[in-house]
Amino acid sequence: MTSLSRENAVLISEVGPRDGLQSVAATMATADKLSWINALYAAGLREIEVGSFVPAKLLPQMEDVATVVRHALTLPGLTVMALVPNRRGAEAALEAGVHKLTMPVSASAAHSLANVRKTREAMVEEVRAVATLRDAIAPQVLLEAGIATAFGCTLQGCVPEDEVIWLAAQCIEAGADESGLSDTVGYANPAQVRRLFKRLRAEIGVHAGAAHMHNTRGLGIANCLAAYEEGVRTFDSSLGGLGGCPYAPGASGNVVTEDLVFMFESMGISTGVDLEKLIDARQPLMAGLLGEPVYGMTPDAGLPKGWKQQH
Amino acid sequence: MTSLSRENAVLISEVGPRDGLQSVAATMATADKLSWINALYAAGLREIEVGSFVPAKLLPQMEDVATVVRHALTLPGLTVMALVPNRRGAEAALEAGVHKLTMPVSASAAHSLANVRKTREAMVEEVRAVATLRDAIAPQVLLEAGIATAFGCTLQGCVPEDEVIWLAAQCIEAGADESGLSDTVGYANPAQVRRLFKRLRAEIGVHAGAAHMHNTRGLGIANCLAAYEEGVRTFDSSLGGLGGCPYAPGASGNVVTEDLVFMFESMGISTGVDLEKLIDARQPLMAGLLGEPVYGMTPDAGLPKGWKQQH
Repeated sequence: MTSLSRENAVLISEVGPRDGLQSVAATMATADKLSWINALYAAGLREIEVGSFVPAKLLPQMEDVATVVRHALTLPGLTVMALVPNRRGAEAALEAGVHKLTMPVSASAAHSLANVRKTREAMVEEVRAVATLRDAIAPQVLLEAGIATAFGCTLQGCVPEDEVIWLAAQCIEAGADESGLSDTVGYANPAQVRRLFKRLRAEIGVHAGAAHMHNTRGLGIANCLAAYEEGVRTFDSSLGGLGGCPYAPGASGNVVTEDLVFMFESMGISTGVDLEKLIDARQPLMAGLLGEPVYGMTPDAGLPKGWKQQH
Repeated sequence: MTSLSRENAVLISEVGPRDGLQSVAATMATADKLSWINALYAAGLREIEVGSFVPAKLLPQMEDVATVVRHALTLPGLTVMALVPNRRGAEAALEAGVHKLTMPVSASAAHSLANVRKTREAMVEEVRAVATLRDAIAPQVLLEAGIATAFGCTLQGCVPEDEVIWLAAQCIEAGADESGLSDTVGYANPAQVRRLFKRLRAEIGVHAGAAHMHNTRGLGIANCLAAYEEGVRTFDSSLGGLGGCPYAPGASGNVVTEDLVFMFESMGISTGVDLEKLIDARQPLMAGLLGEPVYGMTPDAGLPKGWKQQH
């Protein structure tokens, strides 16, 4: 891959099997999860967050996560990612053999306490403990700290930008390889996205990670565009917009992978994803979660006449 | 208004009472139209496309357009706009007293023939006839030519960019004051939007007009952002996303005014529109079109905690 083509390519990190499935009431059967992940892989997705390593009594949807990871590891070239809230989860995830860990660290002091009953400083120490464990037993595994509520919070409203950037830097200092920014509650606007990713890059350079945007107020795709224009090249999204926010399911949650891929490919920016096959990957999702609403404007409208993938 | 504040302000041109109402099967009663327009005006909208001057047998929803125009003219500071397909419609619109005429001129040769049974060249002559009439009887009235299918067409697929720019220039040469670009079928992507508006401005300078984007494939708001970044300051949109495409109603049609205003105001770009009052303006719309789906992510999700208008 030449430097020019890398410049014009993005990585779509599919979070549906984790973020989506843990936001819905139903539990998808293991076999259905594997079919769905196979279809996502067949469409060309090369980074998938396949589950969370959390106690099964808290999230029964994730009880089979080690099995799902083992299957995903058989797909060549796929980066198998899992969410871990703490050192204990990381231990299980590393034992299962994941390639990449992601830890949510909330920039909102109020959200951090409400969500994980820890201060932000305590979460940074959890990142440090996970990094130390990783260094000891699986040094090749990547560790991402996703800064949650980076653009605002339903509990405290405004989240000071200085605190967001400080927290991301603290996570890198604690041993995370990447720190991305998440619009957990859909408050972000494109000007804020550009400002914060610019500051993030100035502060932590190549450690600046993914944009994780929500479409709660309709700006998800525009915020991804703004992040792209600011140099971000990894984007989290969810097939069918599944998940993202348990209190406002579906359309209000994660950016829809299909629409995001449509935007980038239409602009001539390669995602490596075949949009027709991606739309096909909705079938196993819907079959595994009967009755659950699945969103996406591009799948509903169909591809433009004469539309061709750019790559 | 200082030059700096003008730089950071946009004009939202509400097209719902025309584009929305002519796309739905039901006919809104005249009194309901007036209540709705009053509510849009109360929210701060200062340009409203209130109807079409077309034969009532073709569009019975627009039979009362002259009455609607007369009412709208009583609202101080409102630019009252109407669509006219031809000289005959323009005559009636000028007689009713509109401030601004808009004529759709399709850049797709196939769409032009299918839609108005005229070549593009014949439509330019229609623009010339309307401009001549306007010059003779109401020289203060503005004439906009909206270049339809400027970003692609469901009949012919690709619409060559050279032909779009050529057509816009022809319309200005024929006497239109402004020529904007419409993504009639929702094919546009942000890179194309930037490219075409840049060329439009290079070709016709200050005569470059509004961006009229659709959300058919989820990119409507991102395309408005791209147009803004290219210097566009007038945006067409529709309350509740009403209309835009009779073959794919609702969410597939016009950009939702509420979400567009939320984006700009969140970015600190003044629209002059009070978002809470704008959301209130959905009530008379829904009351006047019982059962018609009304869209909008921002109204569904509610405003962010602590959110304040920027102006």
